[in-house]
Amino acid sequence: MIKVGVVGATGYTGIELLRILLLHPQVELTVLTSRSEQGKPVSDLFPALREHTQIKFVVPDIDQLAACDVVFFATPHAVSMHTVPALIEKGVKVIDLSADFRLQDIALWEQWYGEKHVAPELVKQAVYGSPEINREQIKNAQLIACPGCYPTSVQLGLMPLVKQELISLEDIIANVASGVSGAGKKASVALLHTEVSDSFKAYAAQGHRHAPEIRQNLGLLAGQEIDLTFVPHLLPMNRGILASIYAKLESNLSVDELQSVFEKAYKDEPFVDVMPQGSHPATRSVKGSNMCRIAVHVPEGGNKVLVLSAIDNLVKGSSGQAVQCMNLMFGYAENLGLNAVSLIP
Amino acid sequence: MIKVGVVGATGYTGIELLRILLLHPQVELTVLTSRSEQGKPVSDLFPALREHTQIKFVVPDIDQLAACDVVFFATPHAVSMHTVPALIEKGVKVIDLSADFRLQDIALWEQWYGEKHVAPELVKQAVYGSPEINREQIKNAQLIACPGCYPTSVQLGLMPLVKQELISLEDIIANVASGVSGAGKKASVALLHTEVSDSFKAYAAQGHRHAPEIRQNLGLLAGQEIDLTFVPHLLPMNRGILASIYAKLESNLSVDELQSVFEKAYKDEPFVDVMPQGSHPATRSVKGSNMCRIAVHVPEGGNKVLVLSAIDNLVKGSSGQAVQCMNLMFGYAENLGLNAVSLIP
Amino acid sequence: MIKVGVVGATGYTGIELLRILLLHPQVELTVLTSRSEQGKPVSDLFPALREHTQIKFVVPDIDQLAACDVVFFATPHAVSMHTVPALIEKGVKVIDLSADFRLQDIALWEQWYGEKHVAPELVKQAVYGSPEINREQIKNAQLIACPGCYPTSVQLGLMPLVKQELISLEDIIANVASGVSGAGKKASVALLHTEVSDSFKAYAAQGHRHAPEIRQNLGLLAGQEIDLTFVPHLLPMNRGILASIYAKLESNLSVDELQSVFEKAYKDEPFVDVMPQGSHPATRSVKGSNMCRIAVHVPEGGNKVLVLSAIDNLVKGSSGQAVQCMNLMFGYAENLGLNAVSLIP
Amino acid sequence: MIKVGVVGATGYTGIELLRILLLHPQVELTVLTSRSEQGKPVSDLFPALREHTQIKFVVPDIDQLAACDVVFFATPHAVSMHTVPALIEKGVKVIDLSADFRLQDIALWEQWYGEKHVAPELVKQAVYGSPEINREQIKNAQLIACPGCYPTSVQLGLMPLVKQELISLEDIIANVASGVSGAGKKASVALLHTEVSDSFKAYAAQGHRHAPEIRQNLGLLAGQEIDLTFVPHLLPMNRGILASIYAKLESNLSVDELQSVFEKAYKDEPFVDVMPQGSHPATRSVKGSNMCRIAVHVPEGGNKVLVLSAIDNLVKGSSGQAVQCMNLMFGYAENLGLNAVSLIP
Repeated sequence: MIKVGVVGATGYTGIELLRILLLHPQVELTVLTSRSEQGKPVSDLFPALREHTQIKFVVPDIDQLAACDVVFFATPHAVSMHTVPALIEKGVKVIDLSADFRLQDIALWEQWYGEKHVAPELVKQAVYGSPEINREQIKNAQLIACPGCYPTSVQLGLMPLVKQELISLEDIIANVASGVSGAGKKASVALLHTEVSDSFKAYAAQGHRHAPEIRQNLGLLAGQEIDLTFVPHLLPMNRGILASIYAKLESNLSVDELQSVFEKAYKDEPFVDVMPQGSHPATRSVKGSNMCRIAVHVPEGGNKVLVLSAIDNLVKGSSGQAVQCMNLMFGYAENLGLNAVSLIP
Repeated sequence: MIKVGVVGATGYTGIELLRILLLHPQVELTVLTSRSEQGKPVSDLFPALREHTQIKFVVPDIDQLAACDVVFFATPHAVSMHTVPALIEKGVKVIDLSADFRLQDIALWEQWYGEKHVAPELVKQAVYGSPEINREQIKNAQLIACPGCYPTSVQLGLMPLVKQELISLEDIIANVASGVSGAGKKASVALLHTEVSDSFKAYAAQGHRHAPEIRQNLGLLAGQEIDLTFVPHLLPMNRGILASIYAKLESNLSVDELQSVFEKAYKDEPFVDVMPQGSHPATRSVKGSNMCRIAVHVPEGGNKVLVLSAIDNLVKGSSGQAVQCMNLMFGYAENLGLNAVSLIP
Repeated sequence: MIKVGVVGATGYTGIELLRILLLHPQVELTVLTSRSEQGKPVSDLFPALREHTQIKFVVPDIDQLAACDVVFFATPHAVSMHTVPALIEKGVKVIDLSADFRLQDIALWEQWYGEKHVAPELVKQAVYGSPEINREQIKNAQLIACPGCYPTSVQLGLMPLVKQELISLEDIIANVASGVSGAGKKASVALLHTEVSDSFKAYAAQGHRHAPEIRQNLGLLAGQEIDLTFVPHLLPMNRGILASIYAKLESNLSVDELQSVFEKAYKDEPFVDVMPQGSHPATRSVKGSNMCRIAVHVPEGGNKVLVLSAIDNLVKGSSGQAVQCMNLMFGYAENLGLNAVSLIP
Repeated sequence: MIKVGVVGATGYTGIELLRILLLHPQVELTVLTSRSEQGKPVSDLFPALREHTQIKFVVPDIDQLAACDVVFFATPHAVSMHTVPALIEKGVKVIDLSADFRLQDIALWEQWYGEKHVAPELVKQAVYGSPEINREQIKNAQLIACPGCYPTSVQLGLMPLVKQELISLEDIIANVASGVSGAGKKASVALLHTEVSDSFKAYAAQGHRHAPEIRQNLGLLAGQEIDLTFVPHLLPMNRGILASIYAKLESNLSVDELQSVFEKAYKDEPFVDVMPQGSHPATRSVKGSNMCRIAVHVPEGGNKVLVLSAIDNLVKGSSGQAVQCMNLMFGYAENLGLNAVSLIP
């Protein structure tokens, strides 16, 4: 049983983290912080939690947080870097769901996030929280930088192809679509039901900050730079990401052989499901679940591989993966507390 | 640990039952029947189950079912009554999610369901599976007739008012709206996304077969006949029922006193949540959960009480309530396997 | 051909007004005001208008507005009352889509809208813009107070029953559900896609300001006070209102006779469609149209009448009805520019 | 004024055609056929048409159809080819919304549509009904093969780049997503609200029959074969297609220059809107409209061009484009009857 604190639990990744932690058999949720909601039970904001917890928000306090075994940050970008150093110094483990420690290149981070980084020395120490890439380092890490939601879907879709040098690294295209919860819980006309529902569009086609994150991580796997065109789209639904990833096949592998490559690569992974050949993973099938479902195609038997990769942006794309890291860090079964079945329908 | 069989698990109540049973710590799912899908793994039909079970559909066989401790029927109406008698005779416990054993008045059942009842003698023996009404009888029952989804929402909303004679029984109005999953999984133009989404309408305004069920059960609680106008509506979403129930106050009770009546009535119920005064339960807050959330209002301080009652039609309105009955029948904690937190958002 | 001005065209009723006026063969749109968007083409805010108009927003100016034949106000409540008097004095016709001139009882208005009314003398002069109630007065009016969206649906549903004294006026219940666009275009967490979609709830059950409007207008038709319980609900879709209205039948009228009452009452109305007996109007069937579709039921042949009344809250519930009034005021065919067919699907 | 017949008006393209034709000032709708609905008013099936037409379905009859100036076929594939020859022989103009006459290569058609073509000689005579490609031929055509919905969006997005040889023709990727109405109005579990809503997936990734159509038409424009990877996706909404098209830039054109290429190419087109640089067309902005909105991007200034192309699959993707062709064939203004403004929201 570990004591867990959550900083910034009023947004969607924060509440999703609570949803998972409250049912986790080894977690005692001891601190929940929010300046704006101080003193209020979290169930006042989220009636769905009424029968599950009476915990109230408190103002963030370093000593209180330092009494936890692990502290999650579910804060907006450029917030956690101000508090994490003090916790790290006190020996607390930290799992950061924001982007503050994801990019090793500080200048690149500052360019895309528009802020001066105040804890660059911790960036080097941070372990990128993708168990499929970094399982062993995560087990021993003190500071985890959880992957972004889009990067999780794209990286898992491309990892076997990149590691085994099966595709050209020069013109990979990741056409990715996300539900609205990816944009967070903020009062914004652009995110109103009236604006988003019943419509579909691309956004940030000029460039999105998840692109450098993907290029960094795939580049590390490839041992060289990769050229990726990444275009996000906004779906008229709340949860789910589908990445449709296109790459040129370098080898003459058939779709059967590619299927086999993926099945072998992920055969021991608890949260990557390589679906049978010919499948089309629907985001519905991973909603509320920590699973990433993948299918591999060679459209019309041509020279392009298409990887379809579906996750729930709030679970495998964020809070679920964060708890998966926590399980690894504390020696629990990797899927402890993460076995929810997606709702049908 | 009990052996459990499910007859007819290809529809939405069936698959919801699986979703709950597969994570239930005292359940071993041993038989799953479907004539049409014989030999196929259930996860072929529902990819969301791929990592949770390898069980395959078999053709229904009485002996195989009789080896179970309990058999659930998630079949269309007028199916279970043909098979249940043989299982009852063999001493198996049966939980029927269909309507076959809900109405004590056989003639009324035959009128509304348009079939001759073939097991009328079992109807008397059947216990109506509403724990809030019949907890003790359920514990000792061999045959449970699970309530309909609409009746569950309306009966829980009215029970304290009817039992304590606080409202006129002569003109209760239940305006109820349900998500599309209530109509089941059948190929029908009327249920297409193109027909249902982005629209709202009433249906069956001339009369719906859940009305006699509600009148039967509230009449039993009242000790007299009640006059209820029940009008269902179809919501452009998949899960959830909201009952907006109007009745004339017989007494001079204030909204504070009514609030207190409901809080007392349900203070020990694990799956009825009387929300704070002034609340408006959203179906979202019970999605995927077995909870029924209730709020009581006296609009503009007049002489009408409005009860708002929200459930997930597939959980508290069907499969969750069925498992709640199973827990009672086998002496497990009533909420075992039923503590899922609704997804937000 | 008339010159038309629109004050406050950045919200959903305003843009809907533009959508109709831009295709109206007798309208020249000459002034469009918005302080916040001054100088910007309206099509920058609403790309759907790109090929239809190049008109730009200007800061409101009385003289410029006074050069119009008619000025529409699509402003939030408590705004138009500040500007309308000056326009009325200059002889301009005014059609106000807001609530400022709807309630004849100034104290009641101030109570529900929480402001001091600054033009109470104009309230008496204002004609309530419901053509089915006030067609002749509208023709000669200088100032129109357009009905609220909920009141339009409820009043049209009850008018024949109230005028012909066929129901008890003592306990009418209007259970009404609206799409999200009724809440306007404002940055609000409560109206986000993530909060509203895939869920259903009542709101303002303690009292909503459309209730006094309905009571005023039905009371005028009845020649006495009426007792109405009005409860609004929020639908997970953008457009459409369905009113499900329940009343006790005073007479022994059959459903056939009630059908005939409605058909006769509305036989000459261009925008009220009494559907065949047994129908259930779907909001889909009036989306984007100025039609109100009505069906009459006597559930299970009891002593209650159920009227189902469906409108598009932004058309018949607001901007379409406003243009219908304009047509009457300027002697055009009442349906000129209002013959759009709802999209299917 | 022309006499118009519609064969097969019970599906979504058929009813959309009616919606447009009923308001077209030069059209008299004289024949509407459906074997299954013979004798029934079309408004019984589609209440939204109640105030617009009393026309009834009749059984298809060649002589009756031959009395029309033009006959539209809104039939499933492999139907019109059986009837069209007789009408062509009688001198009637025919506009076929199905795929029967789209592919010039008969063998290819038979391979993708799985039927023997019974009127191959008419295929050569048929004009592909894309006004932006074939305006002059359409004016004089007797038989129009209307483009598929996906091909319309992709072809308009690529036409300027292909004609002006600005991209490599060897690896174009068209990632395209469509609303559910594209699948038609048929009783199918896969298209239920419960299955489709709140989810997103690709389909037909192995190959879709719109791919050869696109390759044929772009190949004709290019004067050589093109290599296109086409992957369709299913959106949880009813109407709208967004094509996200990726190609490698052959030249060193900047995004400014590409913008200019598109603006020049389409400056005289009534139904192609090249949006300002940096735009992201939403399907919402063309819903119910015949417009195709296009934006051009060079993501992160790389060597790929991204074209975003949004249409309403039932209007520009089908029935609206068909009426556009009709206007050209009969010398009417090309946009007559096609000026609807998309609903907002």
